Amino acid sequence: MKHTISALVRNKFGVLARIAGLFSGRGYNIDSLCVAETLDPDYSLMTIVSHGDEAILEQINKQLNKLVDVVKVTDFAEKECVIRELALIKVNATTQNRSEIMQIVDIFRAKIIDISSKSLTIEITGSEEKVGAIIKMLESFGIKEIAKTGRVAMARK
Amino acid sequence: MKHTISALVRNKFGVLARIAGLFSGRGYNIDSLCVAETLDPDYSLMTIVSHGDEAILEQINKQLNKLVDVVKVTDFAEKECVIRELALIKVNATTQNRSEIMQIVDIFRAKIIDISSKSLTIEITGSEEKVGAIIKMLESFGIKEIAKTGRVAMARK
Repeated sequence: MKHTISALVRNKFGVLARIAGLFSGRGYNIDSLCVAETLDPDYSLMTIVSHGDEAILEQINKQLNKLVDVVKVTDFAEKECVIRELALIKVNATTQNRSEIMQIVDIFRAKIIDISSKSLTIEITGSEEKVGAIIKMLESFGIKEIAKTGRVAMARK
Repeated sequence: MKHTISALVRNKFGVLARIAGLFSGRGYNIDSLCVAETLDPDYSLMTIVSHGDEAILEQINKQLNKLVDVVKVTDFAEKECVIRELALIKVNATTQNRSEIMQIVDIFRAKIIDISSKSLTIEITGSEEKVGAIIKMLESFGIKEIAKTGRVAMARK
């Protein structure tokens, strides 16, 4: 099962390296990670997705909480939340099949953000499942490139 | 000036920690970082945004290229590219001002993805400037929470 954790951290040199080291040092793989400044430039919010043993994850949560520069840790496992990721997908497209791709883009409420004579670049946001589903539909045209952000999460309340 | 670099890396333990350490070890702050698996689960794509001295950045690019688990480094500084980030914004909303917020959401082509009696959660994608502009418009209502992904980039071609 995949776990989504967010950590509000102080913007100090080496915080990211320390947190990444905490995971890798325990053999705990990070599936995705996003880190970006908050409204207060002294703090950043990290969203980490990982999978594996519950006991190790609990240990990592505790270790995270002990770090001086970590202000708050949220584990979204027990919470109702909205989770989103963003993907940019560049797919082969010719004048012949462009309209077929545009139909798929419409169905997924995605957006075309760039076009060339040989390709379309598509922006999609949603759950990992939704992003996976559009990728599956586009694979037959030939995907040239994908860039994904990894998840961000927010509790419903 | 902000620099956007992407690195295609092998999915090995400790790669993220090593790369984060490369930046912090040289006193080079990371503004945002996204890392997520590619279509091939053996590889991940990292997108790193940082700012600072050109000479140090060039050095970091070289050091990144030397790491065994780094397959390809792309510096978007010299390239025409599309850059996007995703933000979730939870804003105070009452029945009185909800329609005013919905107007702003429409103008920015954002989406409302959650609602409670006291708040709305908004999803927006775009450049950092666009995300910054909607945040500025929403600030007067009172922002309860923000979660941002950091940038992803793709060359136009």
